[in-house]
Amino acid sequence: MRILILGGDGYLGWPTAMYLSRQGHEISVLDNFAKRRWEMELNVEPLIPVRTLHDRVRAWQEVTGRKIELFVGDLRNYEMVKGVLESFQPEAMVHYGEQPSAPYSMMDHSRAVFTQMNNLAGTLNLLWAMRECAPDAHLVKLGTMGEYGTPNIDIEEGFIEIEYKGRKDVLPYPKQPGSFYHLTKVHDSHNILFACRVWKLRSTDLNQGVVYGIDTDETRLDPRLATSFHYDEVFGTALNRFCVQAVSGIPLTVYGQGGQTRGFLDIRDTLRCVELALLSPPRAGEYRVFNQFTETFNVLGLSEMVKAQGGKLGLQVDIQHLDNPRVEQERHYYNPKHTKLIELGLKPHLLSDVLLESMLHRIQEYSPRIKKDIILPHVNWSGANVKAAGRKLSVASCQASD
Amino acid sequence: MRILILGGDGYLGWPTAMYLSRQGHEISVLDNFAKRRWEMELNVEPLIPVRTLHDRVRAWQEVTGRKIELFVGDLRNYEMVKGVLESFQPEAMVHYGEQPSAPYSMMDHSRAVFTQMNNLAGTLNLLWAMRECAPDAHLVKLGTMGEYGTPNIDIEEGFIEIEYKGRKDVLPYPKQPGSFYHLTKVHDSHNILFACRVWKLRSTDLNQGVVYGIDTDETRLDPRLATSFHYDEVFGTALNRFCVQAVSGIPLTVYGQGGQTRGFLDIRDTLRCVELALLSPPRAGEYRVFNQFTETFNVLGLSEMVKAQGGKLGLQVDIQHLDNPRVEQERHYYNPKHTKLIELGLKPHLLSDVLLESMLHRIQEYSPRIKKDIILPHVNWSGANVKAAGRKLSVASCQASD
Repeated sequence: MRILILGGDGYLGWPTAMYLSRQGHEISVLDNFAKRRWEMELNVEPLIPVRTLHDRVRAWQEVTGRKIELFVGDLRNYEMVKGVLESFQPEAMVHYGEQPSAPYSMMDHSRAVFTQMNNLAGTLNLLWAMRECAPDAHLVKLGTMGEYGTPNIDIEEGFIEIEYKGRKDVLPYPKQPGSFYHLTKVHDSHNILFACRVWKLRSTDLNQGVVYGIDTDETRLDPRLATSFHYDEVFGTALNRFCVQAVSGIPLTVYGQGGQTRGFLDIRDTLRCVELALLSPPRAGEYRVFNQFTETFNVLGLSEMVKAQGGKLGLQVDIQHLDNPRVEQERHYYNPKHTKLIELGLKPHLLSDVLLESMLHRIQEYSPRIKKDIILPHVNWSGANVKAAGRKLSVASCQASD
Repeated sequence: MRILILGGDGYLGWPTAMYLSRQGHEISVLDNFAKRRWEMELNVEPLIPVRTLHDRVRAWQEVTGRKIELFVGDLRNYEMVKGVLESFQPEAMVHYGEQPSAPYSMMDHSRAVFTQMNNLAGTLNLLWAMRECAPDAHLVKLGTMGEYGTPNIDIEEGFIEIEYKGRKDVLPYPKQPGSFYHLTKVHDSHNILFACRVWKLRSTDLNQGVVYGIDTDETRLDPRLATSFHYDEVFGTALNRFCVQAVSGIPLTVYGQGGQTRGFLDIRDTLRCVELALLSPPRAGEYRVFNQFTETFNVLGLSEMVKAQGGKLGLQVDIQHLDNPRVEQERHYYNPKHTKLIELGLKPHLLSDVLLESMLHRIQEYSPRIKKDIILPHVNWSGANVKAAGRKLSVASCQASD
């Protein structure tokens, strides 16, 4: 299958490209390296040094003999998007090409507006370009479980049958996203559903949980193939950050009570889920949603698992409750369904001591690179933000219009 | 009350400004005159000549002795928005300042992306500026009944109590908007709800039906105070367009079977609804939704009413069913609630023969100005659009980045 990976330089985009290439598909990656600039703005960097995408594509060919084509461009440039679709003629696209961080989107006005303009315009351009140049292609779009929020009823996969005053309908699941970033995913979902309905495009929206892990079978083939593992407050996620805190001897920072429950999955399962969606495409005009995670944990429980595993390795690990910088429920009902990918054949890698141990070992290899000052939260949802933080963030460069 | 009207040059913005000014409030209007340019692009114009906003503000003062302050600026300019809030210090804002046409948003790629970028960025800027400069002010935001689509269950006002598998929650009503324009209103609603939740802003989202009518008590005071009455396919709406067709001797164009049912209201009720929302503001942190219409009609039924009334005035009126240019259900359940504004005191002006007669008479006064070639639909939802149309539309000027 000819598959275009949008955001191919990212934490998940690059491993997805390698994985699908190794399965024999013809892969192109597209990126504008915007995230590398956002890292520079905030003076954060991935734990393991990450080569340029050009170099990684070359290394992939040296290591495996397989070719990945590289396009450089910004999804907000419609002519570029159309040009890529016309030239590569993808049968499917995997769309990771958005600003992916909730804290980044809550940092200040310009980053909030930028996040929404960037993410929405890119996806709108893609939909229009599909309509014009690739109407039969399958769009696999990365959404997030965070679109749903924490309702007091079961969370279904994208749609819910509502019985109300004696009548019934199946309607889009009501969304309660928790940041300007999460809002972009909700907006995208509405836009894509509409495009499928009126233009008969086909799309799978993967509402993904929090991904953890450093390595995939492909990153392990050669050190030059590493992907960007973030542990900072802006681009890092809970479990990855806890592991780095455990290794570097600073307390695991739990936001509030830590009763926030979320869906999680191993990075290797992300790749497999995307593949399963690709191998069973929806029909023309169909927009479907898969909830993509394998287990739920609450944040405090997760920190306790890392503490226990760290202890076995002789690490002194403490847990510290911080004032929650986010506006969210800290105790809530949470029962999200996730059967569709299992039905397609997903065999989950559940979170195990072995994985935690290997993550901690891998982080120990790179521990001299850990920047301790980028872990603690400085971005506050309710608006205190930059001024309240010890570390002043630059806010100059990222206008909505750029 | 100090009230800022955003989009004060528009069909509803200007009459709202005059009405509230006459009630004794201190009014400012803001506009960037973008709609005047869109009219120029498409070579359409309002039926009744409309003075510039500067001239209308001056005429209002001459006629009533009351002053309306005028700000000229684009809501996408954040510094401008903050400057206006700092200078005027509004206690409330009425936000009509968006691209308001569904067909315009479906015309081509650049107008679709422009509509979403323009509407979202303007409202986001307003929310951030409120947070910074006017955190206690009340945002009255114009949404549309079209956000809901046509679900097979009753439509509630913004939120619905869902009982599901033995559990209950009150959640945002699931939305199924029918154009890129309608999608912007759904996106705005999600953004505003979030801002109310995390920043304790207060907002009323008015999900308005289709407005009809030419005159209000204030436009009647002086010919210079007229508002922009559109009858073209892009900015005109069903009933207004039917009346113009009846007068000009061309068949009333019903899209498809005409069983599409929608909520409607008299322009004078729009003004009263906005006033009622302003007089009973929500508490800090509250986001509430009112469904703002007074009656439902289906499109065919509406055309028959106009035909009957036209016949009484000696007009020969035919009804013609066109292939539906939109993608929508033509027969459907439709039972939207609209009790909250009634509870606040709204006394509806229901659609009557008298109103239809006065509209037809008023249109007859201006019948030499009717451009017959701008009434028929050329914008096709499914993508045929410009190429299929007899009238080629210019597509050059309206890039998302401008």
